Amino acid sequence: MGLFVHKYGGSSVADAGKIVSVARRIAGVHDAGHQVVTVVSAMGDTTDELIDLARTVTPEPDPRELDLLLSTGELVSITLLSMALRSLGYDAISLSGPQAGIRTDNAYGRARISEVDPARLQHELAKGRLVIVAGFQGLTPDEDITTLGRGGSDTTAVALAAALEADRCDIYTDVEGIYTADPRVVSKAAKLSEVAYDEMLELAAAGAKMHPRSIELGAVYKVPIYVASSFTDAPGTMIQQPSDEALMEDRIKVTGIAYQTNVAKVTVCGVEDKPGVAAALFEPLAASGISVDTIVQNTSADRTTTDISFTVTTDDLPQTLRRLSSMAPALSAAQVISDSSLASVSVVGSGMQNTPGYASRMFRILADGGINIDMITTSEIRISCIIGREQAHEAVRLLHRGFELDEG
Amino acid sequence: MGLFVHKYGGSSVADAGKIVSVARRIAGVHDAGHQVVTVVSAMGDTTDELIDLARTVTPEPDPRELDLLLSTGELVSITLLSMALRSLGYDAISLSGPQAGIRTDNAYGRARISEVDPARLQHELAKGRLVIVAGFQGLTPDEDITTLGRGGSDTTAVALAAALEADRCDIYTDVEGIYTADPRVVSKAAKLSEVAYDEMLELAAAGAKMHPRSIELGAVYKVPIYVASSFTDAPGTMIQQPSDEALMEDRIKVTGIAYQTNVAKVTVCGVEDKPGVAAALFEPLAASGISVDTIVQNTSADRTTTDISFTVTTDDLPQTLRRLSSMAPALSAAQVISDSSLASVSVVGSGMQNTPGYASRMFRILADGGINIDMITTSEIRISCIIGREQAHEAVRLLHRGFELDEG
Repeated sequence: MGLFVHKYGGSSVADAGKIVSVARRIAGVHDAGHQVVTVVSAMGDTTDELIDLARTVTPEPDPRELDLLLSTGELVSITLLSMALRSLGYDAISLSGPQAGIRTDNAYGRARISEVDPARLQHELAKGRLVIVAGFQGLTPDEDITTLGRGGSDTTAVALAAALEADRCDIYTDVEGIYTADPRVVSKAAKLSEVAYDEMLELAAAGAKMHPRSIELGAVYKVPIYVASSFTDAPGTMIQQPSDEALMEDRIKVTGIAYQTNVAKVTVCGVEDKPGVAAALFEPLAASGISVDTIVQNTSADRTTTDISFTVTTDDLPQTLRRLSSMAPALSAAQVISDSSLASVSVVGSGMQNTPGYASRMFRILADGGINIDMITTSEIRISCIIGREQAHEAVRLLHRGFELDEG
Repeated sequence: MGLFVHKYGGSSVADAGKIVSVARRIAGVHDAGHQVVTVVSAMGDTTDELIDLARTVTPEPDPRELDLLLSTGELVSITLLSMALRSLGYDAISLSGPQAGIRTDNAYGRARISEVDPARLQHELAKGRLVIVAGFQGLTPDEDITTLGRGGSDTTAVALAAALEADRCDIYTDVEGIYTADPRVVSKAAKLSEVAYDEMLELAAAGAKMHPRSIELGAVYKVPIYVASSFTDAPGTMIQQPSDEALMEDRIKVTGIAYQTNVAKVTVCGVEDKPGVAAALFEPLAASGISVDTIVQNTSADRTTTDISFTVTTDDLPQTLRRLSSMAPALSAAQVISDSSLASVSVVGSGMQNTPGYASRMFRILADGGINIDMITTSEIRISCIIGREQAHEAVRLLHRGFELDEG
């Protein structure tokens, strides 16, 4: 008997028919003698619709209130799925995030899970029940409801798998697994049967459709994560720590090409060039929950001032500019310039570790394709370039071919 | 400085514009120097829509799952109202039933409030906040979500007023107050400026639009309840214990005429006429949460068997018949007959206490109108007749005129 955590995304539970299909799949796992905890997202576009509803009342909804509002989306989907299982003759129970013991900090809209108390989950599993848990939500120490941010249901699922010491966490979604590149962009993209946590983390952060925090959690707690389609039985992708042999083979090549099209660049010009300037700039942004990615600093010709550029998501750009305008005088900055028409493309692979030549090869491929590079950032197993958004798809195709991923 | 609990029903918060209107009204009370706790129902027909949604998955949704689903309706309306207040510049916070300290038994779908822990409410009020609370919902000792049944938000509001020792509980609705009869049926119906708890309890149980449990609670905890329109500033009706002088004046006449059109009658024929039969019949119905109203028992001609008739709401009829069919053999009943086309009309007034003649006058008025009486039930301050549903409106008009309420 195994214990599995399943996660179904919004498109997998978009209507009553799809919910009944998911119920049948879960029932099948139960019939095979396993215990199952299922995490679900809100139905279809519910979360976006609730945000739109809030905006009919106020252009900038209070974050605490918005989180309590958004948490209702998952309550609807878990109760319907539990009802569907019960109508098929299975003993099921739905639990909200708080009921499932998910505790978070109080960073509304992007809360982080601080703890999972699995007592209620274990109690219901011990009764032989199929347990359905609301993804994306948790409870603060003050007993207020939080949401975990976009894709937070993935994080919920992996956190529950870790807390319950489950055998595996299955993420069922509208794609069949993790590919060497977005198959909608690159027709020759190949499905990966296996990918390492650190590679997936870079792919996730760089645009593949998985929540990066869920991968981090999986890596820390060594939860094998299986990504597959909720609509077909095609084999998916297993995210786990590779065995040593697999690692050696991986080393010979790049794993995949990722991209993001929601990149905005902000440049703060004419900042006084002295110690502490970067901290003074980025601390208030971090305090506002704004996640800053690539950072580049150039000293000006006269060497007394400097320009600092960084990227944020286009969603975070308005708030970033507001925060900057309130502190610009303190930084004696001459000017703040922003460009919200950018994208990032990334080459990812653990085979790149300590192996020179990948970066220069990437720059050459982009240059030959007439694609201008605005900024560059690297990690141990990833090289990312910031480019114009309209060239993003072409860049992904060129890199996929250039790094010999087209051959499969 | 006063402390008021306001309650707004679903039609008062049916869309964003109406929610902003309610926010302005609450803000006005705050500006006048008062503390306000506002209880709201789900927007418009949300609760019915959620029930319909559940039925797309299963014809008979599990009660626990249905309650968790239905509880989302109020979470949407409280968060939107709180956002609206915040956008007007007021410090507001929304609280779910559980967050507001509302504890209930575990009778899903018709839970009763066992306790209100006002700690969080008082904490938020002490911060100078406008507190918005989800009506209709609470938390069981096992930390599961319950709903209080139709109209349960009224009960939430009065319970909070009692727990907070508020000065008054205002129920804002789509009518301007309590009338001597339904104004849609009787054009000469007059608004009552004041009504006693016990009279209102009979009017509420007999069809006026207030949740009877809220009136009971108000009477026990001596919470003055003010019923008025959420759309106009017209004076409403105060429900409270009348002063002695008012009581004396009330004694001279009937307060109002109430009616219900969702009445079904069930007759169990040929029941063995021996002690314990009625208990054997009604205990299982009570255990199923079915509320039985009028009960009549007739002994048959041969005096060995008896017929027992009783009324339930038409909503409860299918479940009642199912329960009866499973126990009929045990009761050696020959037959169960039901009629779901009935209504009740009631004459209510504390002036009827210990005063003969009201019942016979009611029967005469109905007889003169050609209306046949099927069953009769009385309380200290109410006489009700079960009649055919198609004659209900006519009966209300005849009784309103016959008891001299047309004069106002």
